[in-house]
Amino acid sequence: MRVGVLGTGIVGRTLATKLVSLGHDVMMGSRQAGNEAAVAWAESAGQLAGHGTFAEAAGFGELVVNATAGSASIDALVSAEAENLAGKVLLDVANPLDFSGGMPPTLTVCNTSSVGEQIQGTFPEARVVKSLNTVNADVMVDPSIVPGSHNIFVAGNDAAAKETVRELLVGFGWPEADIIDLGGIEAARGVEMFLPLWLRLYSAAGTAHLNVKVVSQ
Amino acid sequence: MRVGVLGTGIVGRTLATKLVSLGHDVMMGSRQAGNEAAVAWAESAGQLAGHGTFAEAAGFGELVVNATAGSASIDALVSAEAENLAGKVLLDVANPLDFSGGMPPTLTVCNTSSVGEQIQGTFPEARVVKSLNTVNADVMVDPSIVPGSHNIFVAGNDAAAKETVRELLVGFGWPEADIIDLGGIEAARGVEMFLPLWLRLYSAAGTAHLNVKVVSQ
Repeated sequence: MRVGVLGTGIVGRTLATKLVSLGHDVMMGSRQAGNEAAVAWAESAGQLAGHGTFAEAAGFGELVVNATAGSASIDALVSAEAENLAGKVLLDVANPLDFSGGMPPTLTVCNTSSVGEQIQGTFPEARVVKSLNTVNADVMVDPSIVPGSHNIFVAGNDAAAKETVRELLVGFGWPEADIIDLGGIEAARGVEMFLPLWLRLYSAAGTAHLNVKVVSQ
Repeated sequence: MRVGVLGTGIVGRTLATKLVSLGHDVMMGSRQAGNEAAVAWAESAGQLAGHGTFAEAAGFGELVVNATAGSASIDALVSAEAENLAGKVLLDVANPLDFSGGMPPTLTVCNTSSVGEQIQGTFPEARVVKSLNTVNADVMVDPSIVPGSHNIFVAGNDAAAKETVRELLVGFGWPEADIIDLGGIEAARGVEMFLPLWLRLYSAAGTAHLNVKVVSQ
């Protein structure tokens, strides 16, 4: 599958590398053509890897991954252009963390909305699925580094899009049974608002290679 | 120990009943003397149970539990009077959920503050510990109804106060190893902002008898 990965940070690079290793054609998109991190990644990642602008990467992808900073995601996706997103599965892994005010960080959007909802609202023809934002990049693409069984969440309005993301997650190593469907895209609020707790757990555990397992009666 | 439990809802009644069963003297506090729910509870709960105003219950308790609705907690504690809280462990289990706008509910405070922080800020001489708000009332007092091991969090600025709460939690049945210290009271933000996700998990699991287990490398 052709995948456009928007974002050149650690999350974008980690996802892009994993996707290439699974045999997908990946174009990493950035705000400006020739972005150093994107060029370096594409050069190191082999023949299935390329780079381009947000619009080029979104146009290239059959599936598009939003791995930009949550606070900049809407701008990045506007730059990617709505017509390049229309009808496509848009996997949103962003977190709207703002560390500018010091610790603990705040969220740039929460409570009455979320990045996932903002994206779906701004691009109604994209089939937005929120997932993976509740774990560190290493865990996203290799859940086995956290011992035992633990969960990953999907949320979105389009059942077929969620199924596509679910297959991608299984490809990353997430056991089918550990993927929890939280419902519509408004559930993005729940997983994004989990981040302040995640950051505390990170401090308490002393590692970002952590996750939660949901247990119930 | 003498415990004042502020709040006559299901959480207050469940905690108060458990405390009595463990041999504590409990006074349930409410806004007005003679509150029906408090009177009924005290009549059914035996000789160790009493009822009174918020101020009477807070004055009675060596430890005070805030089990009022998060949106009303500051008002309730002002009514309980600062001098009745000074120097005492104040276990805050409240969640600032607001269902008035429909589903999903919003939080009346989050992101830049929390109920726990507001209480500590308003009553600097109280030794506030945030805990238990991440689970249903039944699970608070009987964690064994959720299978396997799963975690409960404590947050607060006073180490001795957290130790007192930890002992209380162990009395409720929480294994010592399952209690995670998240740090200062500002971590209340993390556990309160977990609620939107919890509500989604509740829908997905079909039971409120759920919790999360933190797993790490």
